[in-house]
Amino acid sequence: MVEISSRTQQLPASAIRKLVPFADAAKASGVKVYHLNVGAPDIKSPDCALDAIKAINLHHVSYTNSAGLIELRRDMIEKYYKKIGIDVGIDEIVINVAGSESVEFAIQITCDPGDEILLIEPYYTNYYTLAFKYGVGVNVVRTNIREGFRVPGIEEFEKALTPRTKALMISNPGNPTGVVYSKQEMEILGEFCRRHNLFLISDEVYREFCYTDEPHYSAMNLKGLEQNVILVDSVSKRYNLCGCRIGCTISHNKDVMAAVVKLAQARLCPPVLGQYTALGALDAPQEYFDQTKEEYIARRDCAIECLNKIPGVFTPKPDGAFYTIAELPVDDAEAFAKWLLTEFRLDGETVMVTPAASFYLDKSLGKRHVRVAYVLEVPKLKRALHILEKALEAYPNKL
Amino acid sequence: MVEISSRTQQLPASAIRKLVPFADAAKASGVKVYHLNVGAPDIKSPDCALDAIKAINLHHVSYTNSAGLIELRRDMIEKYYKKIGIDVGIDEIVINVAGSESVEFAIQITCDPGDEILLIEPYYTNYYTLAFKYGVGVNVVRTNIREGFRVPGIEEFEKALTPRTKALMISNPGNPTGVVYSKQEMEILGEFCRRHNLFLISDEVYREFCYTDEPHYSAMNLKGLEQNVILVDSVSKRYNLCGCRIGCTISHNKDVMAAVVKLAQARLCPPVLGQYTALGALDAPQEYFDQTKEEYIARRDCAIECLNKIPGVFTPKPDGAFYTIAELPVDDAEAFAKWLLTEFRLDGETVMVTPAASFYLDKSLGKRHVRVAYVLEVPKLKRALHILEKALEAYPNKL
Repeated sequence: MVEISSRTQQLPASAIRKLVPFADAAKASGVKVYHLNVGAPDIKSPDCALDAIKAINLHHVSYTNSAGLIELRRDMIEKYYKKIGIDVGIDEIVINVAGSESVEFAIQITCDPGDEILLIEPYYTNYYTLAFKYGVGVNVVRTNIREGFRVPGIEEFEKALTPRTKALMISNPGNPTGVVYSKQEMEILGEFCRRHNLFLISDEVYREFCYTDEPHYSAMNLKGLEQNVILVDSVSKRYNLCGCRIGCTISHNKDVMAAVVKLAQARLCPPVLGQYTALGALDAPQEYFDQTKEEYIARRDCAIECLNKIPGVFTPKPDGAFYTIAELPVDDAEAFAKWLLTEFRLDGETVMVTPAASFYLDKSLGKRHVRVAYVLEVPKLKRALHILEKALEAYPNKL
Repeated sequence: MVEISSRTQQLPASAIRKLVPFADAAKASGVKVYHLNVGAPDIKSPDCALDAIKAINLHHVSYTNSAGLIELRRDMIEKYYKKIGIDVGIDEIVINVAGSESVEFAIQITCDPGDEILLIEPYYTNYYTLAFKYGVGVNVVRTNIREGFRVPGIEEFEKALTPRTKALMISNPGNPTGVVYSKQEMEILGEFCRRHNLFLISDEVYREFCYTDEPHYSAMNLKGLEQNVILVDSVSKRYNLCGCRIGCTISHNKDVMAAVVKLAQARLCPPVLGQYTALGALDAPQEYFDQTKEEYIARRDCAIECLNKIPGVFTPKPDGAFYTIAELPVDDAEAFAKWLLTEFRLDGETVMVTPAASFYLDKSLGKRHVRVAYVLEVPKLKRALHILEKALEAYPNKL
């Protein structure tokens, strides 16, 4: 009997998707399920992007350059990065199959098997999963929900460092916390990486979903870190085109970009229809971002208010992305999330949340936490959180 | 100074793309370059696929299931696999970001770092590159150009086996050789895998580009190998939609499919616009394949005849795909290919071919070989091969 590899046997299954069969069963029995579990926004894509799909007029759909269409790379620099003050040369950007591929490339490029990557906990689960695929270990610096998941003092980073640490990887604005790092926090992280000769992999796919008064401060603007920073970015996420799967990797480090190109060649080319759509999306006016931001601020405010008024629930107020981590008065958030789908109904409706244990290296730390994605319109969001409140009242295993 | 990982430093650069800068320079100076180097067909995509792009009417482009749209998986089974006699259950197929991702998944699933994969040489370069990424070694069974790259006796496979061998990976029809394995050859390979408990990864992305009288014999039809076979397939290649990046992995082995799903979840979802295009493509009539095949047979016949009449050139007659390996009367095919781009012009035109050394583990074996992709219309193909003939007459380092 053939047996599959240990690495894929041990690869963690997606926690976000583990509950899906229970949700499917609930729906099959006629229950309406409000999805607060996935970061799949319902905001309209810009018309210029949707029009670009309609305008695709090809004789056949051939490969593009492995690094992506030259006109897409050029337009991303001219129409987007210049505008937000990020300096990028044409040889310093490669188009990826979404931010996911960019993360995967960055891990391979910075770490050999047995090397380690440093994450700020709670972290985006797939950082761990993708590192695991390549035999890369994960160490963490802990943050605290009561302190809004802010970056702790540099001494915590020093403590987490080992001789095998090769990179610090951050998500800013953060998934799953929604935290946005200030310029000052970024400079602390940058100084730490400079001092210890680490790569700084900065995943900024939620950059345009930032609700602070100050503009988002990109790792690309850190002085003296030009050789260390690898920027993970997404086009599809930014314009509510998640399914187009278009992202990019940017770095001033020539060795990094040469490696990105080699990895890109091994998978031939990024999705071509998505690239044409992205070309169109780049013409979206500033109002598109402003309106999207306004909508998310309303949703965030609603989510935070509704959550914090539930007895025993606590969540900090996040400044970006469309997630928040909430602490619930339950002993096991995963059992509670499953119970919501299998047992609890309020007028034939229930709600789906993501148990947060998988965002922690030490699963016990996230045992009472869930990630809530505020990706529903305000009235639906209110209803969903009302259901959550009633469910917590009814839950038999409450603390 | 930060340093990138050894694994990406040592990752081979794409041989197929290494000469691109020289081709670009030639074109920039006004020289016309005939591309016989990449397998990028110029055949029209089916109208039903191109119409499907135009019909995409979305409010926003959200994620699909990580395993791909359920209706795409269902239609692929109903409209394609059933028709060609391959039995697939809905849980036995996952949509990939093209055949490339399917190969990458199959390597991870069958091999741990330090394990080995067995290839038939000459092999598709990216098999080697993708195995290398995951710390997987490569062993080869040699075939011979004079014997049309047919599968050698089973004893050659036994000799190449080591205790770390976990899978045999084949390309059928073959890239770069164009060889198509008969049912009898497939049964020999299957028996070898069964006997030694190996996975058989069968890359059949060129299945519809098969010019034999007998129908293509899929590894999926091997009796007693149900748990061993992993099928790598492509939709985009089949319908001249290469840039859509839609492929799939198929297996009756539940552990394999569970691992495929986990790997698929870690990269969220396959390109959505490509999935809708693929849905449309599945309605292409049989005549579409017949016409495409007829065109390729004409090109192949032209390519083989033109090549073999050049003094000192030998190529076997391939039965599938759109490649052939040709032996040239030169001491170093890579130097010759570069010379074509940098030095040789016939009335302001030249030709680009792929040096074949990278398709061999022992580079010296492919030193006099090039891969010719017959992806041009017959008149252009004739002209390109005429240029090649004149170039070989003029080449100073001829054998």
